[in-house]
Amino acid sequence: MGLFTHDIKSMDDLFVHTLQDIYYAEKQITKALPKMIDKASDPQLKQGFQTHLRETEGQIDRLEQVFRMHGHEPKGVTCEAIDGIISEAESVISEVADPQVLDAAMLSAAQAVEHYEISRYGTLASWARQLGHDDCARLLHETLEEERATDEKLSRTAETAVNRKAA
Amino acid sequence: MGLFTHDIKSMDDLFVHTLQDIYYAEKQITKALPKMIDKASDPQLKQGFQTHLRETEGQIDRLEQVFRMHGHEPKGVTCEAIDGIISEAESVISEVADPQVLDAAMLSAAQAVEHYEISRYGTLASWARQLGHDDCARLLHETLEEERATDEKLSRTAETAVNRKAA
Repeated sequence: MGLFTHDIKSMDDLFVHTLQDIYYAEKQITKALPKMIDKASDPQLKQGFQTHLRETEGQIDRLEQVFRMHGHEPKGVTCEAIDGIISEAESVISEVADPQVLDAAMLSAAQAVEHYEISRYGTLASWARQLGHDDCARLLHETLEEERATDEKLSRTAETAVNRKAA
Repeated sequence: MGLFTHDIKSMDDLFVHTLQDIYYAEKQITKALPKMIDKASDPQLKQGFQTHLRETEGQIDRLEQVFRMHGHEPKGVTCEAIDGIISEAESVISEVADPQVLDAAMLSAAQAVEHYEISRYGTLASWARQLGHDDCARLLHETLEEERATDEKLSRTAETAVNRKAA
């Protein structure tokens, strides 16, 4: 994408650009999660991050299918949003020494990541349907439901374990 | 917050830091929305952004109340996450010339912002409850519900008007 070159001319271009954005984001998430698994103290949280990593790898496969169904090679574009979310998380995490407060901070960071993904997959599934790509929409919707379920699981972990201990 | 000085020692510190993060984010959103109102073509979308701007101002007032209830002066800290989300939105928007594709791109950006807020207010309301600050929790929950309603309204606008026209 050039600078002010109006490279996004159609809804189809916008759809592909947003696929590339979330593809890059998912790859960044697979790099960030192992560090969080390593630092997590609460076993339920550690396991939650491990599941999330496996799911993210499956979501990347699914995205690659969507690219190909749509006649494109899978490719990422820098996603400033996820870079900002991850960089902020790392900066907050670096300020926390207490293991239980650290768990709460990481859980909150993971939910910010989840919500970014929910918003992008929601948009992509809706655009795919409206562009008549029902096959792509189905796969994108599958990931959307997975992200929503992960977010709910993280909320339950927050309510039942991590935050209570830390408070 | 210093660099690697472990300034966040307790859940209370983490709560205040996250309040400062979303306070900064809300202020950035009030700067970004007028540009989006200006660029929106679809009247329903334009009106949605206008409502969102008024709501954001109310949410800032509510945050200031939460700070004071908690014995702190309202203050922001740079939130790299919202800076990344807004900067990415501006960069995508600058690539689109077609007014209907632009509306779809802005609507998608607004939903990414909403989801960041939903994640932060969800976390803050949960922490406030667990720290025994029920008065703060009530106000934070009120904003959370407002954000969720706005996101749903944006989804409906996407399904019924903007995206269909653009596709």
